[in-house]
Amino acid sequence: MAKKLVEFVPNFSEGRDKEKVEKIVDEARKIKGLKILDYSSDADHNRSVVTIIGSPEAVTEAAINMAKVAIQLIDMRTHHGAHPRFGAVDVVPFTPVMGVTMDECVAIANAVGKAYGEMGIPVYLYEDACTKEARRNLAAVRKGQYEGFFEKIKDPEWKPDYGPAVMNEKSGCSAVGARVPLVAFNVNLDCSDKAVADAIAKKVRNIGGGLHYVKAMGVKLEERNQVQVSMNLVNYEKSAVYQAFEMIKMEARRYGVNVVGSEVIGTVPMKALLMAAEYYLQIENFNLDEILEKRLLELEE
Amino acid sequence: MAKKLVEFVPNFSEGRDKEKVEKIVDEARKIKGLKILDYSSDADHNRSVVTIIGSPEAVTEAAINMAKVAIQLIDMRTHHGAHPRFGAVDVVPFTPVMGVTMDECVAIANAVGKAYGEMGIPVYLYEDACTKEARRNLAAVRKGQYEGFFEKIKDPEWKPDYGPAVMNEKSGCSAVGARVPLVAFNVNLDCSDKAVADAIAKKVRNIGGGLHYVKAMGVKLEERNQVQVSMNLVNYEKSAVYQAFEMIKMEARRYGVNVVGSEVIGTVPMKALLMAAEYYLQIENFNLDEILEKRLLELEE
Repeated sequence: MAKKLVEFVPNFSEGRDKEKVEKIVDEARKIKGLKILDYSSDADHNRSVVTIIGSPEAVTEAAINMAKVAIQLIDMRTHHGAHPRFGAVDVVPFTPVMGVTMDECVAIANAVGKAYGEMGIPVYLYEDACTKEARRNLAAVRKGQYEGFFEKIKDPEWKPDYGPAVMNEKSGCSAVGARVPLVAFNVNLDCSDKAVADAIAKKVRNIGGGLHYVKAMGVKLEERNQVQVSMNLVNYEKSAVYQAFEMIKMEARRYGVNVVGSEVIGTVPMKALLMAAEYYLQIENFNLDEILEKRLLELEE
Repeated sequence: MAKKLVEFVPNFSEGRDKEKVEKIVDEARKIKGLKILDYSSDADHNRSVVTIIGSPEAVTEAAINMAKVAIQLIDMRTHHGAHPRFGAVDVVPFTPVMGVTMDECVAIANAVGKAYGEMGIPVYLYEDACTKEARRNLAAVRKGQYEGFFEKIKDPEWKPDYGPAVMNEKSGCSAVGARVPLVAFNVNLDCSDKAVADAIAKKVRNIGGGLHYVKAMGVKLEERNQVQVSMNLVNYEKSAVYQAFEMIKMEARRYGVNVVGSEVIGTVPMKALLMAAEYYLQIENFNLDEILEKRLLELEE
């Protein structure tokens, strides 16, 4: 296995035509040195998300080749879907996994952004790859969406980092970034009132005065007749899973509501959960090197 | 990296003469397909413990070659040390790590035991490799130690599983076993009275009516002026780390004593700690396949 591993999770604005999605994913399958961990399409969102791991070279090549096919097959002029989006190759984040620094992922984002620019796509670098603080947050970058960018792109404040400073009608724009792994973590409550979950979410998340790296919203789980605080932890090393969990318990008490369970969505780095074990078990001087699997990953043939 | 990985942790009755220890470890260094994770010698115990990971074939070869050198260099007739022992190649446990079943580790223990027997060493199989329930527990097997085995070995109940049914004066006996990974986990208390730690240990451990797969004892930490419940969890999947931790907290309450911290000693499988995260965070339907590092280990080139 490669000693340097990067995860990248391209989001494409096509979630209904499976044949098109397969053609895009095929471009990754052709490349040696990477592995597709999974991919899924959502028809309501009309969007596909692919999770790929590989060497810096392999993910760079995949990001470029997949985009070449995607901008041929996807036409934003006829795209409709529930998920915010502003381009065919909507979002392309790179995340360090093993033996790779964040700076290296920023370099990859720049190489990929430059290539997209040469393909005629206006590119915005975001998160750790951002060139201005105002572009760090993906939601801020994408605000206005495809339809709004015909105007937004003319604003000198929103001149793209790569590519033309005019909107690409067919393909829209792309956000290319480098970021720490995002942890999707949901907490379920013994309550059926979505307003309670919303209120708790507001107290837990950054914009409500809560944890800096937590985004949260209330969700109704119709089948269970319960509500959920659905969160994205965008930096689990700084705003930890156990902190978010304890804050929700704390706020729920105000309503006489209890936590009945939680769920981790998608792939999660072991450290995000080991930090919880470390906290609750009060482990002193915890060292990730004590974890057998970490040692195994470091073994060379 | 090999797809099948076994951990083995041979314990040799030599912890003072570094040259001899190096010669024994050198035999492992010569073999392709294995990695020495670490090794340490203790002069008081006069004992060395090596932690090695490799393919089934490589660990079998290493176990045999290291023993050949050890029985040349170590003479039990002059061995003294604080740790219980009954032979030069005192204990050799094999543990499944990845892509290997316990049955395969039992088969390795038998192959190694047979080879040791042919080298003239009486061999007892223990834990999951045991041929009788009375031999499952290493402490029961080794009871009487080197000095006592000249008599004990004559008892038909203690006829070795492999090798001669008479004591090997120079090399003693060997215990060869297959077992799940052992987790060494200690919990520190805000109390300086060892009797309290002893009393708590008794309630937590199997023989005192506590958790089935937990061994525990009280220890005085002189430098900290605190006491500790020192535990071995011999099957962390059945008697979990978080259970042991919560039981100690519960028993400590009786004395008005609090847990101030804990420590994990040596290498630990991530699952042992992830089970604690799962418990405390109340994660529903937790699946180890969600852990990025587990997926990485399953990647093939």
